Amino acid sequence: MLKIYNDSIKLHKKKRGKLEIKSKVPLKNNKDLSLAYTPGVAGVCLAISKKPKLAKEYTIKKNTIAVVTDGSAVLGLGNIGPLAALPVMEGKAAIFKEFGGVDAFPICLDTQNTEEIIKIVKQIAPVFGGINLEDIASPKCFEIEERLRKELSIPVMHDDQWGAATVILAGIINSLKLTKIKKEEARVVFSGVGAAGVATGRLLFSFGIKNIIFCDSKGIINNKRKDLNKEKKELLKLSNLKNKEGSLSDAIIGANIFIGLSKPNIVNKNMVRSMAKKPIIFTLANPTPEINPKDAYDAGAYIVATGRSDYPNQINNSLIFPNAFKAMLDKNIPQFDNKIFINIAIALAKYIKKPNKNYIIPSMFDLKARKIVYNAVKIKK
Amino acid sequence: MLKIYNDSIKLHKKKRGKLEIKSKVPLKNNKDLSLAYTPGVAGVCLAISKKPKLAKEYTIKKNTIAVVTDGSAVLGLGNIGPLAALPVMEGKAAIFKEFGGVDAFPICLDTQNTEEIIKIVKQIAPVFGGINLEDIASPKCFEIEERLRKELSIPVMHDDQWGAATVILAGIINSLKLTKIKKEEARVVFSGVGAAGVATGRLLFSFGIKNIIFCDSKGIINNKRKDLNKEKKELLKLSNLKNKEGSLSDAIIGANIFIGLSKPNIVNKNMVRSMAKKPIIFTLANPTPEINPKDAYDAGAYIVATGRSDYPNQINNSLIFPNAFKAMLDKNIPQFDNKIFINIAIALAKYIKKPNKNYIIPSMFDLKARKIVYNAVKIKK
Repeated sequence: MLKIYNDSIKLHKKKRGKLEIKSKVPLKNNKDLSLAYTPGVAGVCLAISKKPKLAKEYTIKKNTIAVVTDGSAVLGLGNIGPLAALPVMEGKAAIFKEFGGVDAFPICLDTQNTEEIIKIVKQIAPVFGGINLEDIASPKCFEIEERLRKELSIPVMHDDQWGAATVILAGIINSLKLTKIKKEEARVVFSGVGAAGVATGRLLFSFGIKNIIFCDSKGIINNKRKDLNKEKKELLKLSNLKNKEGSLSDAIIGANIFIGLSKPNIVNKNMVRSMAKKPIIFTLANPTPEINPKDAYDAGAYIVATGRSDYPNQINNSLIFPNAFKAMLDKNIPQFDNKIFINIAIALAKYIKKPNKNYIIPSMFDLKARKIVYNAVKIKK
Repeated sequence: MLKIYNDSIKLHKKKRGKLEIKSKVPLKNNKDLSLAYTPGVAGVCLAISKKPKLAKEYTIKKNTIAVVTDGSAVLGLGNIGPLAALPVMEGKAAIFKEFGGVDAFPICLDTQNTEEIIKIVKQIAPVFGGINLEDIASPKCFEIEERLRKELSIPVMHDDQWGAATVILAGIINSLKLTKIKKEEARVVFSGVGAAGVATGRLLFSFGIKNIIFCDSKGIINNKRKDLNKEKKELLKLSNLKNKEGSLSDAIIGANIFIGLSKPNIVNKNMVRSMAKKPIIFTLANPTPEINPKDAYDAGAYIVATGRSDYPNQINNSLIFPNAFKAMLDKNIPQFDNKIFINIAIALAKYIKKPNKNYIIPSMFDLKARKIVYNAVKIKK
C-alpha cells in the first residue's frame, strides 16, 4: 500500500489539487466583459429575480453539484476531519465531471454537528442543482439526508448509502439469476449496519427480498438487543423474522448471500462452507475485505464480488452517482427515492446479456453502462 | 441598456452558466483512479491529517477562492437575493481565472444575517485559500470583513471596498501629479459613504490625504448629525475638521477632487464650476454617473474618471482582485491590510510613465499592469 500512497502524494503535489474552475465564456475585451459581467449581467440578474426558475437556465445551478462532507467517516480512515477529507472530495468531483459531465465542487464543513450541517447545506444551496453527501458518519448521515430531502427543493443523495446499495442490488439480481434463486426465497446475511448496510438493506427490502439477517459488531440484530439505533430498529421490523440470536457465524449458516460492509478478515472458510449451495459472497470491506476472495473460492463460493479493482465483480459506486445526478439535473427530477435506485439496478443487471460468475455488474469504465444509468432515471408517471 | 441585457441573457442561456469545473488529472482507467481516488488518495488524506499545512500543497486550497455574497447589494440593483446574484458571482469567478489564474467558486448564501454569514463562511473555509466578499450591503459588510479577518487564518477581502479604493487611489496619485497638488494639501469631497466610500476614505487617510469631507444622502457628515453609523463616526474623527454643515453642493465649493460613489445625476455643472482650479472628477456611479463626463468637461473639469468602459480612465476593480489574491496565495501572506492596497496603488500609478488626463490608470486588459499588481503584494519586512 505504501507505494500507491507515495505515488498518489507525488501526483497531488505536482498538480496542486485535482480541480480547476474555468470560464466557459471569453473575457478578452470590453465587449466580452459587458456581456459576461457588467453591465449586461444585470439583465440576467433581474430576470432571475423576477422568475427564480430561470436560474436553472442561465446559471451553473443547472449542472452543478455540491460534494458535502464533515470529514467524520472518510474512506476507511475514520474521523480525519474536513481538511484531510478534501482530496477525496476533489476526486469525487473529478469523477462527476469525467464520468457524467457534471460540474461538482467540494464543500468540506468545519462542523460535525447534525443541525449545523443541515442548516449550512440549506444556506449554501442556491448555487447548486443537487447535493451529494459524502463520508458522513452513521447514524447521523440518515437524519441529515432525510431532513435535507424534505427541506430542500433539489435532489439530495448520500452516496455512501445509495451508490453502494444500487450497485450491490444490480450484482445481486444477476447473482440470483445465475444461481436460479428467487428473490422471495433468497436468504441474505449482512455484516455491517452502517451507512451502506442500512441503505442496501432498505433497497433489498424494497426490491422484494424478504429473508435478511443483519449483524453488526455485537452480533445478530434481534429484539433482545437494547443498544439498537433508530435505523437498526426499523430494519429489525422486516428482518430476522425468527428472531435468531448469536454471532455472524451463527447467522450465516444456510444463507445464500453474504454482504460484507464492515471490517477486514471477520469471515473464515468454515463460515462460507456453512452457507447454502453456491454461496454468493459480497466481501466489500476496503481495501482489506471480510474474507479474501481466494479463500472464499477455496471454501466453495460460487460468486465473489469485492470493492477492489484487482478482482472481478468490482462494486464501485462511481458507476452510479455521476450519471444518476446528471439525469436528475437534465430531467428536472425533484428528488431521489428508492424506486429510482431500483430502476437503475434492474437496468444495469439487464444490460449484461449473458452474466457469468465473473461478470455480474458492468465496469464503471463501460461507457454504455453509464448511459444505461442515465436512461434508467426517469420522471415518475 | 435593453439590448445589452438581452444579448447577455442570450449568452447565459446558450452557455447554461459561465463556469465549469474540470479535472486536472486523467481518470481513464483503474490506474488513474487508484492514484487520484481510492486507494492512493488515502495516503494524501493521512498526510494532511498529520500535518494540516500540507493541504496547501496537495489540494485546491492552494489556489481557490470563495466569492461569497448574500445578494443584499448586487451591482446597482439592490437586495435581489442570493439566487439572482449568482450570474454576477460567476462572472467574478470567471474574471479571477482569466485575469489572475485563480480558481474561484461562487457561494451565494441564503441568509442575510451578519452572525450567520460569519459563521457559515468560517464553516466552509477548509476548502478555500481566501475569501472574496462581494455585493454585501453596507454597513454589515464592515463587521463581516473585520470579524472574518480576525477569526480566519486565510486572506479575506470585500472587493466592493478595497478593489474600488485601490484603483481610485492609483488614479488620484496620478491626478495629483498632473495637477501638481500635494497630497497633504488636496481637498477631497466624497459623495457616498457606503462600502466603497468608507474604504476609499480610509485608504486615502492612510495614504496621507488630510482634507476630506464626506457627504451621504443627508448631506455633509458632521458632529451635529445624530444618524451616523459606526463607520461614519470613525471617518468623522479624521474628516471635516472645520465641522462644515450643509449639502454636497456646499461641501464641493473649493474642492480639488470629487469622488462620487453614490447616485446618478446629483452633481451639476455649477457644482463643478464652484470647485478649485483644474477640478478632478471621479464620477463612479454605474451605469449612470453622478455627472455625465461631457457635462463635467463642459464645466471645466480637468480630469474625469468613470466606472464605464466607454470613457477614458475607467475605474474597474477587475484590475486588482485577481492578481492581488493570486499574490496572497502564492506568497502565503496571511491577511490583507491597508498597506498592501496602498502599495498596489502606488505601483500602478508609477507604472504609467507619462500619465495624461485621459490616462491616469492602466486598463484591466493591460497584462503588464496585472503583473504590477501581483508584484506589489509583498510579505512585510
